[in-house]
Amino acid sequence: MKTIDVCLSPDLMHLYPVHDRVVVVVDILRATSCMVTALAHGVKSIRPFANLEECRAMKTKGYYTAGERNGEKVDGFDFGNSPFEYMADNLKGQKIAFTTTNGTQAIAKSHGAKEIIIGSFLNLSAVTGYLKGGKDSVLVVCAAWKGKVNLEDTLFAGALVENLKDHVEPDCDAPLAAQRLYNLAKNDMVSFLKDSSHVKRLNRLNIHKDIEFCLTPDQYSVTPRLIGNDLRLL
Amino acid sequence: MKTIDVCLSPDLMHLYPVHDRVVVVVDILRATSCMVTALAHGVKSIRPFANLEECRAMKTKGYYTAGERNGEKVDGFDFGNSPFEYMADNLKGQKIAFTTTNGTQAIAKSHGAKEIIIGSFLNLSAVTGYLKGGKDSVLVVCAAWKGKVNLEDTLFAGALVENLKDHVEPDCDAPLAAQRLYNLAKNDMVSFLKDSSHVKRLNRLNIHKDIEFCLTPDQYSVTPRLIGNDLRLL
Repeated sequence: MKTIDVCLSPDLMHLYPVHDRVVVVVDILRATSCMVTALAHGVKSIRPFANLEECRAMKTKGYYTAGERNGEKVDGFDFGNSPFEYMADNLKGQKIAFTTTNGTQAIAKSHGAKEIIIGSFLNLSAVTGYLKGGKDSVLVVCAAWKGKVNLEDTLFAGALVENLKDHVEPDCDAPLAAQRLYNLAKNDMVSFLKDSSHVKRLNRLNIHKDIEFCLTPDQYSVTPRLIGNDLRLL
Repeated sequence: MKTIDVCLSPDLMHLYPVHDRVVVVVDILRATSCMVTALAHGVKSIRPFANLEECRAMKTKGYYTAGERNGEKVDGFDFGNSPFEYMADNLKGQKIAFTTTNGTQAIAKSHGAKEIIIGSFLNLSAVTGYLKGGKDSVLVVCAAWKGKVNLEDTLFAGALVENLKDHVEPDCDAPLAAQRLYNLAKNDMVSFLKDSSHVKRLNRLNIHKDIEFCLTPDQYSVTPRLIGNDLRLL
């Protein structure tokens, strides 16, 4: 039986082989939620960057620049890190260069994986279905916050473990912990997360609407995948 | 208000300042459970070693040698890693050199802390009381399994967060996750842990009795502390 494991922080990636795994990168608040939203709304491709200046340089190559540092939009960039920014009609068919504090770092650390896909609650069922259909074992990589484990990414990992439980076996304790937390939280994730560190951080930025949206399952039936250097829809 | 944080794996120690913290090292199955048992039964001191051969060399200096690698007793050592080995009368007043796969590594990685104490369910209330009475913020360091997060150490961290909730504020999401898992598990930890990776590993070694004992709260009212190179009772 194929397995599922959960890397709760990118700083633990050295413990997990990826060459034979489908890696699902998750940064619920808000990088992967934005990526899913943008591609579902017709953006052609998203190129993720760990490095901010490399991302900024893409402006001269026909890309929109987007992302955040410490939760706030980068000076001089076209877009920040709210999913609502990525629903605009004039973004259809466009290319975006994207960098964030945690999410794009987690993608960079997943390089070498057999396959990298992008997960969020917004496309939970699509990702579940894709993983059910595949042959390979799964590693969920939580973007966390500067290396520290966070609740919202852990809950998403737990949702995948729960949804795949008849198809994929948990590989270690992290998937079990995540699954149990998800089952505890799933009926009201907004309340469950109200004390979490990043929700508090984002509440200070006055983006409660973003948080509620990012915790809403199944708004889009897309599964973004890293093909070459770019995230695109399958 | 002082704070409590939880480092879920020694491989995340670089994220946590320790110089101004009381660090509680926990390796429920079974290193810190053994240490607590031994000192409660009258062992004079325990010197923890990360390195196996350094530990072995203490044999010539009047120490008993003890510990495990991969869950099994080290060849040529006097004692293994079962708490029941440390209840013998002839160990009273003796010195032990101790090395384990995870627990003594976690102690080594905690060096530089303002204070290092040893936690287990066996001395949960004693540790809780000690931390309540202290002025410093707390970091619980879970020994985990070769860097991978485990459930039993996470539950103990959660028990401390829960027991200290009126006195100490959670610093980030890891203590919240641990606390919620503990509250889910506390009425029957043996059942909660039956699918966990290390319980499965130890069941193969046929030590179910050890597991039940290590999950029993408050067998001893001692708080072992690292003083110089040795763990002793306060």
